[in-house]
Amino acid sequence: MKHNSGQSRMLVAVDCVIFGFDGQDLKLLLIKQNNGPQKNKWGLMSGWLQPGEDFGEAASRMLYELTGLEDAYLEQVSAFAAEPRQPKENTVAVAYLSLLNINASQLQLNDQYQAQWISLQDLPGLIAGQVRMVEAALERLRYKAAIHPLLFELLPAKFTIPQLQILYEAIYDSIFDKRNFSRKILSTNLLVKQKDKEKLSSKRGAFYYKLNKRRYSATFNAFLHFVADPGDLK
Amino acid sequence: MKHNSGQSRMLVAVDCVIFGFDGQDLKLLLIKQNNGPQKNKWGLMSGWLQPGEDFGEAASRMLYELTGLEDAYLEQVSAFAAEPRQPKENTVAVAYLSLLNINASQLQLNDQYQAQWISLQDLPGLIAGQVRMVEAALERLRYKAAIHPLLFELLPAKFTIPQLQILYEAIYDSIFDKRNFSRKILSTNLLVKQKDKEKLSSKRGAFYYKLNKRRYSATFNAFLHFVADPGDLK
Repeated sequence: MKHNSGQSRMLVAVDCVIFGFDGQDLKLLLIKQNNGPQKNKWGLMSGWLQPGEDFGEAASRMLYELTGLEDAYLEQVSAFAAEPRQPKENTVAVAYLSLLNINASQLQLNDQYQAQWISLQDLPGLIAGQVRMVEAALERLRYKAAIHPLLFELLPAKFTIPQLQILYEAIYDSIFDKRNFSRKILSTNLLVKQKDKEKLSSKRGAFYYKLNKRRYSATFNAFLHFVADPGDLK
Repeated sequence: MKHNSGQSRMLVAVDCVIFGFDGQDLKLLLIKQNNGPQKNKWGLMSGWLQPGEDFGEAASRMLYELTGLEDAYLEQVSAFAAEPRQPKENTVAVAYLSLLNINASQLQLNDQYQAQWISLQDLPGLIAGQVRMVEAALERLRYKAAIHPLLFELLPAKFTIPQLQILYEAIYDSIFDKRNFSRKILSTNLLVKQKDKEKLSSKRGAFYYKLNKRRYSATFNAFLHFVADPGDLK
């Protein structure tokens, strides 16, 4: 139905909104622009889609280049248009959401990018058009994490329930009742209690848990309802 | 971080996967290609993103051109790449999902497109690259409709619970228990019972219901759980 003669060709970018958690704060992995009109501004890891490449492949390639990780969580958030990055150049961009454990031993940041983990509460001004990508990715993260167990991607292999609760509270920017939270999380049967305790945070200590990986994979796409009413989410 | 010199410019398309329901079958609104190498093949309503236009605006423009509707449900599903539509031409496409009431009086199909509602069970071969868009849109529809009340978009203003159940069964390609289904739907308080009955389908007849539009808007983004376990959905 549509003809391609006279149609504008556009540059097609992929932008990665990479979330991490350090035990206290939800953070974004940002890189510093080292040249061009946006020099010294912070921005998302991004690049151009290559001919013959699918969007997911491009996002994986960029994440690998920046972090050395090959199997991190990646999800397409949305395609955006209408904000030219270069004067007079039409650009569209597809935003991806990724979740990383900041302290994972496999994570090796590529020096070339001057990447830094920056707390969501202290975000610097981003390069044009990327603020709405971060907002859309955060909204998607809140939506998905309310019903799916994907936040475990942000945690180390061994974690306590208070640590998990701090993560949920950081993402939803709210306080959850301790007993309800613990009951709801344990009722999913996704956690396996360990014998040792974390004793730095409190005198009594808190038992460590590990993820039941078999059950995690099996039920990931079921609706497990971690947050009853996460607000006005799309 | 990325430079645009030497990068490929691409054609950027928007494709609309338009679902409708006629009381029995879930259908897709398809149009016939009237020229080019795909002449006489069926395909999705689609077009090129225009410079300065956002993706949602482009999808609305195409839906309006085809149906005359201005405020139908539209949701971005995913961006796809890597399947050139024209020989040697790099193309990316963003798929949108739309839901229409086939019998709505405002719906006026534009003759120019030779559009037809075709049952999902009798789909003809589609033009290249569109099958995966239809599959992704159907998967998204199943996911969203399991937890949000969006299927009412497909129904007339007045409908019976058996009609609603037929719609759910068509979308999930499964059979739901009548009493459970009715109990779950009514417990949302989204439906307002009418005084009259539909009497063509059964001797006893079934009461008509209307949507409580205020409550529908207020709770649309809450998780209402219409389908307990819709399977392996993403």
